[in-house]
Order: sequence, then structure tokens, then C-alpha cells
Amino acid sequence: MSDGMNYAPRAQARRVVESGAFRVGVVGLDHGHIVGMCHGLEDAGAQIVAVHDPDAAKMEAFRAEFSGVELVGEEAALLERTDLQMVASAAVPADRGPLGLRVMDHGKHYFSDKAPFTTFDQLEAARSKVQETGLIWAVCYSERIQNESGVFASQLIEEGAIGTVLQVIGLGPHRLGASARPDWFFRKERYGGILIDIGSHQAEQFLYYAGAKDATVLHSKVANYNHPEYPELEDFGDATLVADNGVTNYFRVDWFTPDGLSTWGDGRTFIMGTEGYLELRKYTEVARDEGGDQVYLVNGKGEKHFSVAGSVGFPYFGDLILDCLNGTQNAMPQQHTFKAAELSLIAQRDAVTINASPVK
Amino acid sequence: MSDGMNYAPRAQARRVVESGAFRVGVVGLDHGHIVGMCHGLEDAGAQIVAVHDPDAAKMEAFRAEFSGVELVGEEAALLERTDLQMVASAAVPADRGPLGLRVMDHGKHYFSDKAPFTTFDQLEAARSKVQETGLIWAVCYSERIQNESGVFASQLIEEGAIGTVLQVIGLGPHRLGASARPDWFFRKERYGGILIDIGSHQAEQFLYYAGAKDATVLHSKVANYNHPEYPELEDFGDATLVADNGVTNYFRVDWFTPDGLSTWGDGRTFIMGTEGYLELRKYTEVARDEGGDQVYLVNGKGEKHFSVAGSVGFPYFGDLILDCLNGTQNAMPQQHTFKAAELSLIAQRDAVTINASPVK
Repeated sequence: MSDGMNYAPRAQARRVVESGAFRVGVVGLDHGHIVGMCHGLEDAGAQIVAVHDPDAAKMEAFRAEFSGVELVGEEAALLERTDLQMVASAAVPADRGPLGLRVMDHGKHYFSDKAPFTTFDQLEAARSKVQETGLIWAVCYSERIQNESGVFASQLIEEGAIGTVLQVIGLGPHRLGASARPDWFFRKERYGGILIDIGSHQAEQFLYYAGAKDATVLHSKVANYNHPEYPELEDFGDATLVADNGVTNYFRVDWFTPDGLSTWGDGRTFIMGTEGYLELRKYTEVARDEGGDQVYLVNGKGEKHFSVAGSVGFPYFGDLILDCLNGTQNAMPQQHTFKAAELSLIAQRDAVTINASPVK
Repeated sequence: MSDGMNYAPRAQARRVVESGAFRVGVVGLDHGHIVGMCHGLEDAGAQIVAVHDPDAAKMEAFRAEFSGVELVGEEAALLERTDLQMVASAAVPADRGPLGLRVMDHGKHYFSDKAPFTTFDQLEAARSKVQETGLIWAVCYSERIQNESGVFASQLIEEGAIGTVLQVIGLGPHRLGASARPDWFFRKERYGGILIDIGSHQAEQFLYYAGAKDATVLHSKVANYNHPEYPELEDFGDATLVADNGVTNYFRVDWFTPDGLSTWGDGRTFIMGTEGYLELRKYTEVARDEGGDQVYLVNGKGEKHFSVAGSVGFPYFGDLILDCLNGTQNAMPQQHTFKAAELSLIAQRDAVTINASPVK
């Protein structure tokens, strides 16, 4: 699927539970990511059983994808059901944190689209609620967990293919497609800012590949370079961080994917280690008809190219289901989930705004 | 040639002068770059007529490459010759500035390897000397001017292929090859620091592609991640800048090219514009037997791949010769040459040192 707004790759799945053993309700269909999130859960054995959104047309569209899902008229009616283990949501970013509190107050695990929070208060409330309830507040940082090259890279690192990781660079260009975007997309209070919105993916990938528990934002910046018609849009942002273990990071996110690109964004990850490096061409191999999930490895043994689409799968979703059922944290440690969000909040808060526009 | 220490690509040349019309002396053979610098000049019509270095073996090796060159025992004897228009040098970086002053005091243009200066005092003395003499202080920022993909990119930008440039990212990994490096390479006072040494290329490329006259260093950092045996080596550095016209920049330089890479470094340049972007795979196409000088263009019209080795040439050298003869500044404006050096000096001076090592 070439539309980033609804990017929902599917890969080979390991079904971890019998049908009916893990039941999911959905609240908030504002972002198309919800489809990929639910496919991931479904492919791992979950059942998507009920959905609520104030917009009936959105619910109907969702049911077209997940046949048999029950449409629920009121949020409370869905949250109060006793047959659900988890509620998943791709509400507007600013609403995801408060919704998660309500979900956990009803005793259910929560699976949020990224970015999970737009304010520090939301993050701290979530941390407290998890502490209080013992439930899992999961976030779908899809650019790693739902990308086979991203998963494969972690396996190579684990095997020592590049030695000790020293630096991670992430490029996260996205197609704007402004005319198809909802109003909230252009309101900063609602989407949070570019370093929160699409930067949170990058902070997560950095922490993960670095094997780090914490990091410091050394510098960040944002700009609206070329979209004065959307004054609250940030079409560019970047940041550089250093992790608690010394690994450094740079990432850039932007809304400048050209119309001529075959997919929604030419996302890349470069991971440099003591003994070699990796490059992930995550979603496309530009000007070559080879698709995404291309992994390049260079180390002391030579240069290798792995085309991994269809061969790796997304272990995250099965792990998440089992975590919810077993009280483990194998899919993603809760601390890591929140730390990635925190770093993107800090990067956004501390960002320098580039005012001088080269365009005007 | 796969050895970065002596990287000296040759490309189609436009001979701009008759034989004998532009005569060059060489002082300082500490870095193998001098060979590429002199090839570039020679291919454009210059004659390399005399060389001085305190090391007789280095002079002999140079004569093996430039037959007929006269070996001169004393620097002064070479500088005092009246048959030379230019002196070229790849002396130790810390010595390049002071040498240039002596060259200009003898009425000759100066062509320095990069980085041209290791201190602000050297830079300011050079600016004054140029002001005083009207001579050209040229610097061989070879990663753009001696790279056909780098030259081709500027042609595409000029044609408007990516609209207005917004951001430039440069990755400049280099192979260390420590055992073949001279002592000065590991002494910071002599080589200047990584952001000066190999970072100066990056600052130059940024200013050039951004079409900017000045820039501000927003953040920079250096590390010695994995070479404690060389305590003054910086094996990693990066920086982010904003130009006077709002274009932003990130660059990383490092000495972590793995032994298995087919060449000395997988240098890349990403140039993002309002209407599209470019990626230069400058020296190699990893895991594909296609060589360097690969240019990828994505814009509203689609995705394009240009393999430009042998098709573009290096106009810089002919332009430089003509600039010296005609008093023009077509090869590179003097202000730009010095500003690139200044930005790398600032990035180096202000760099955060990453002390926490992920390796130890």
C-alpha cells in the first residue's frame, strides 16, 4: 500500500493464541494507522470484536476491513464490556493519553498509535496509571516493529554483525497529501508538533538499536519551510541525541516526499558500529523495482544485501498479546515505550524554530 | 583507487591553457591528496614543474607520478622561482596556513589541500594576506569538486530539479588504516580535529548546495569511541548548521569504514528541496558492482538514477587556472573557500565531547 496515511503492511504471523482468547475493542479511528495495528493483532491471533468512533462512516469503513466487528454507539459502552482484554486506538494524538487513562480505569490493556502523548502531563499520568493498575500501555511505533527490515536489523545487531553500535541515523520523510488530511492534522495542539508526531518513531528506533535506557536531547529544530497556508504545520524537524551508554543519534523527519516517489516515504536507517554498518531502505529502493525492506550490511567480511520482505515477520504483535496474558514485557519494556515518547516531547519542547525561509 | 589516503580520481578534462602557460610548484607532500590535486591541475593544462619536501623519498615518489618534475632541496629556492604561477601543498594541516603566507609573500597563488587551517589565527592571517596581495588562496575540497556525482548534483539543482534547497545531509565515513598513517595524523594540534580535517569538506558542500554565504553552527560533537590507543584521535564527529538563507545541514564524519567495503568510504550526500531530493552515492554502490558517482533524483516526475562516472568531469581545475590568470573567481569565490574553513573551525571549537563510550 503506497499511502502513508493508512500504511499497514502485513507479514507472516505467528498466531500465539487460540481464537477468542484475546479480544480487542477499538476506540478512535482518526488515523488510518488503526487498520495496520489491528491487522497486526489479528494476524497474531487476536479478535477485533468491537469498535467505537463518533463518526459512523468511519465505523462502517472499519467494519469493511474487519468483518463481524460490532459497532458501539458510546465509548463508555465499549469500555465497560467485560469480554475485552485490550482497547486499541488511533484517536487524534492529543486525545490518546486521556483515552488510555479511561481504558485502564476499566481494567484493560491499551494499545495506542504513536505518538502516544502530546504533553508531559499526559505522559506522567500514563506512567502513574500503569504503576497503579499493572496494565500495559503499548504504543505502535510501527516504523520499527511493523517493518521487516527494521526487525531484521535487530537480529543482525544481536548476532554481532556490526560490533557495538555507536550511532544511529534515521531519515523519516513522509508524504503530506494535504488535501486528504483532516483538520486536526494542521493544529499543533492536536497533533503535537512534528518531532512528537513522526519523531517519536525515531526516538524509539534510536533507543532500541542503541540498547539504551535513556538519552539526552542535545539539539533539535523545527521549521515550516514551505507551507505558509498551514501556519501550525511543521514540515521539517530534526534532532540529535546521546544515549546513557554514549551512542549518538541524528534523525530528520519531514513532509517533503515528492509526488513521484513510488511510496509514501523513502525512510532510511543507518546504524554504525565498531565493526560495520547497516543501512535500511525501509519502504522503497529508489529507481529500482525491488520494493522495500532492503538491508545493506558492510563489515570486515564484505558487503551484503538482504531483501527481507516476507521473510521476517512482525514478532511484536504476538509478543504483545502474550505480554498482556502473562504479565511479561517481551514485546517492548514499558519503560522504553514511555522513554521514547518522553524524548520526542523534550526534542519538541526544546526545538529551535528556523524562521528564515529559503523559499520565500 | 580504493585507498582514501591517496584518493585521486581522474575525469575528463578541459585543457584551458597551452603547455607552459601555467606552471605549478609543490611544497609539502605529507598527504597523498597532493597527487590528485596535481593531476587535476595537469589535466586542465597546468605543468607540475618543481617540488620540495624535506623527505627525499617522498620527492622521489612524487617524481614517479609526475615525470620531469624538478626536485628542489630548499623551500625558499622553490618559492623564489619566478617561473611559477602557483604553489600547491598537502603539508600537515597545521602547516598549510603558514606556508600559504610565505607562498603569497613570493607573489604566487596558493592551492592548499583541505583542511586549510587548524586555528582561527591562521584563517585570519590568510584573509589578510589575500586582501593585501590580491592572490588566490584555493582549497581542494575534493569531496565535491573532485567527485563527478557532486558536480552533477549542482547541475541538477541549477536546473531546478528539486526546487529550492531546504536541507543538506552529508555522511563522510573514512577508512582509518591506522598502521599506514604518519605520526601527525594522531596529534590533534597537527591535524586539527575531525570536524576540521574531514568536516571541512562537509561545510563546503553545505554552503555550496545551499547557495549560502554564511551559516551558524547550532550543535557539534566529537568522540573517540573506539581508539583509546590514539588518545588524540577523534574517530567520530557531527554537526548541524543553519545557513543565512535558512537552509539547514547535518553532517557526520567518522573513521569507521569497515575493512570489507570496496573503497575507502561510503560517502553520501542527501539534498532535500521543495520539489524533490537527491541522493549521491559518491564512491560506491554498496553490494552492487556499479562503482561510485551514482546519483538518485526523486521529484514530481518520478524516480531517476544517473550513473555519471566519466561523463561530467571536474570543471574546478580549469576554472581555477583561468581565475589565477584572469583575476576572476569562477572556480570558487574566495569568501566561500574561507567561510567553509571557518565553519569547520567553529564546529570543532564548540563541539561537545562524548565521553561515555559504548565500547569500553
